[in-house]
Amino acid sequence: MSKMPIVEVINFGDELLVGIRENSHLTYLGGQLARYGLPIHRSRVITDEASEIKRAFLDAWQHSDIVITTGGLGPTADDMTRENIAEALGAKLVFDAEIEALILARFKVLGRRMAAHHLKQCYRFAEGEVLHNERGTAPGLAYRSEGKILIMLPGPTHELTPMFEKQAIPMLQAMGVLSNEEAYIQLRTCGSGESTVEETMQPIVQAYPELTVAYCVHYGIVDVRLSPHKGRMCMDKLKGIAHEARVLLGEDFVCFGHCSLAGVVFHELRALDRTLAIAESCTGGLLCDAFTNLQGASKVFVGGVVCYSNDVKVSKVGVPESILEQHGAVSPECAIAMASGIAERLSSDYGLSVTGFAGPDGGNEQNPVGTIHLGYHSPVGVWCKTVRYTGGRLDVKARAVHAALDWVRRKLRKYKIEEFLCGCECD
Amino acid sequence: MSKMPIVEVINFGDELLVGIRENSHLTYLGGQLARYGLPIHRSRVITDEASEIKRAFLDAWQHSDIVITTGGLGPTADDMTRENIAEALGAKLVFDAEIEALILARFKVLGRRMAAHHLKQCYRFAEGEVLHNERGTAPGLAYRSEGKILIMLPGPTHELTPMFEKQAIPMLQAMGVLSNEEAYIQLRTCGSGESTVEETMQPIVQAYPELTVAYCVHYGIVDVRLSPHKGRMCMDKLKGIAHEARVLLGEDFVCFGHCSLAGVVFHELRALDRTLAIAESCTGGLLCDAFTNLQGASKVFVGGVVCYSNDVKVSKVGVPESILEQHGAVSPECAIAMASGIAERLSSDYGLSVTGFAGPDGGNEQNPVGTIHLGYHSPVGVWCKTVRYTGGRLDVKARAVHAALDWVRRKLRKYKIEEFLCGCECD
Repeated sequence: MSKMPIVEVINFGDELLVGIRENSHLTYLGGQLARYGLPIHRSRVITDEASEIKRAFLDAWQHSDIVITTGGLGPTADDMTRENIAEALGAKLVFDAEIEALILARFKVLGRRMAAHHLKQCYRFAEGEVLHNERGTAPGLAYRSEGKILIMLPGPTHELTPMFEKQAIPMLQAMGVLSNEEAYIQLRTCGSGESTVEETMQPIVQAYPELTVAYCVHYGIVDVRLSPHKGRMCMDKLKGIAHEARVLLGEDFVCFGHCSLAGVVFHELRALDRTLAIAESCTGGLLCDAFTNLQGASKVFVGGVVCYSNDVKVSKVGVPESILEQHGAVSPECAIAMASGIAERLSSDYGLSVTGFAGPDGGNEQNPVGTIHLGYHSPVGVWCKTVRYTGGRLDVKARAVHAALDWVRRKLRKYKIEEFLCGCECD
Repeated sequence: MSKMPIVEVINFGDELLVGIRENSHLTYLGGQLARYGLPIHRSRVITDEASEIKRAFLDAWQHSDIVITTGGLGPTADDMTRENIAEALGAKLVFDAEIEALILARFKVLGRRMAAHHLKQCYRFAEGEVLHNERGTAPGLAYRSEGKILIMLPGPTHELTPMFEKQAIPMLQAMGVLSNEEAYIQLRTCGSGESTVEETMQPIVQAYPELTVAYCVHYGIVDVRLSPHKGRMCMDKLKGIAHEARVLLGEDFVCFGHCSLAGVVFHELRALDRTLAIAESCTGGLLCDAFTNLQGASKVFVGGVVCYSNDVKVSKVGVPESILEQHGAVSPECAIAMASGIAERLSSDYGLSVTGFAGPDGGNEQNPVGTIHLGYHSPVGVWCKTVRYTGGRLDVKARAVHAALDWVRRKLRKYKIEEFLCGCECD
């Protein structure tokens, strides 16, 4: 396979077609393969009827070099994917005593007897390999014919994932189909919309026609993924281009890779050896949650108050009643009082606050639904900022959290030296 | 179409194939169509190369009665799905001045000029209808030929969703393809694993072979979806079966439909006209977030404290230092002190608390990683409960939140009369 092989993924599973579950296998496999330079070319989801399996599989086999299937390898009578595909291929299945021994051993550990229907899971392609399943009974299967490759994986995520990473990827790398090193670089940005980021990237796009640039937007974050177009480029060149892109993106650049905004803020504060407390109203716990998703969060994050009522804002965060009376709870003044109040009450170096109308109720002329005020208290100063979003309640919450984190990230980078010096003074 | 029409969905979008985004359109469309009794039969995701589009579309058109596409209707030069499909069908596209007028009006509101490339979005099938896009420029398109139906939808979710619900579904209902009423009933359960729920459902499965029973598991919740197998069953009969299932499921039954556990607890407390406060440690804001995702949450939820350090547990939640010294922060005693403390400090009727080790660090012999203690303070008593989960940090957080909410739900239902009487006394 000197040219880029065509990869097709077939997911078996009715639950993917009736809105019960998202096709996370496709996303996972696509991410894994793209990482090593081999994008999936097409995919399909089909029900597990025999005629449908055979027709779809043969179409895929005819038009692709590598076919990867997920699901349909279970022990029950309606899991006939293995048998149907073997029949479509005209390939022979043979009983494999080693598979049987592994399944028997598995049941022994569980203290249960192996049911007779598991015997059908002991068959493999006569001309093929077995991918051992360390978390379940159904082994994965590999088959090669006329330069084409078929890989069949079990449906449960916790079985599929280790099998793919530990066995299928090394197998494809050994065949020379997959690269041994990662094939793209991601730049995470925040602060500008997708079209602005695309415009910013234009000089790079024009200078390197052999580059593929993909964008992914999620709640105010725009990820830019750089990879060689349909082929390979040496990693050093790609790294050089990524650094050019970083310069163009300026302050919007958050990090290379997949670190969350909370993670970036966490690392900045950790480097300063400083702590943070949060007071949040309309985001209702989501901002605290973003921090506590990080392993070791307690080294930076001391705690937070979800002050959903004015009483709690006054009694637990220390917002002066006069501010609530004069400006209301959704105001820049209240945001600042919350940030400073929470830092003082929880004895943290930094305080971050969010107050606003997430909707769909609430809002007034000055502060329509979607208006969010952020407050930031630091050893070198106190700031507030107002943002406004449209969308449903959950969207507004998620965007407000990203806005707050991105704002702190910028402030921390801008005042890096001052904050560091301030830290030295304090010690 | 007297027999069940075969529906195929084609999603255009490279980002779905390289792990950037999950195919949420398929899940959405599958859920919507299944709701009205028409499951999607198969789907595929393809890149937007002309040859690929034509080949895949013709294959789908040949083997299906209804084809729904998403994406590829944008204004840029590489969005050629409309043109490629028209060519494959041998169907004529005509310029539609009404579409142009709508796009012009849209740009006028935005105070911008319409770029020339938007002109390609003004074309529709000569033998077809236009689905108006209330949130963007790309109109949806419908086409009918030889009893088959093609519906083309724009890619952005906020454009696709209202278009499908307000225009495509009524159109398909008017054609008699979709039922006018919902076609399945969902029973949400919590407290037992999938296999136990499946076992509990056995008498129903055996008594009604014409019934399809599907299960969906998410963080301790098991949804049971009852629908007629490949055809219709009168709604009254389905409702009767659903009520039989509810009885079998016992206390595990949460609700019919899709209400969240937080929503169920919210409604119970709202009916009692009582308030709730939360103190959470290892779940770090996620429990508060579950409540504040609900519209009107502030009627029940007064606020919460994310007490990530012992200092905050003592100073903000009122946990006695002696309890921390004697039992530690991860203990049933601390959970109870947190629940009662937060209710008292925030002047709420109920208090709910979570403390534990979400992992991967922490834990000790008595309380290994994944151990969670829950505390519940109510006007009729105070309880604690311990649960234990395996899995990553985020999984443990999500399962702990569901465990806490499910526990409160059971308690509220069990002591319903007492709590109601207690409410009367207090007033």
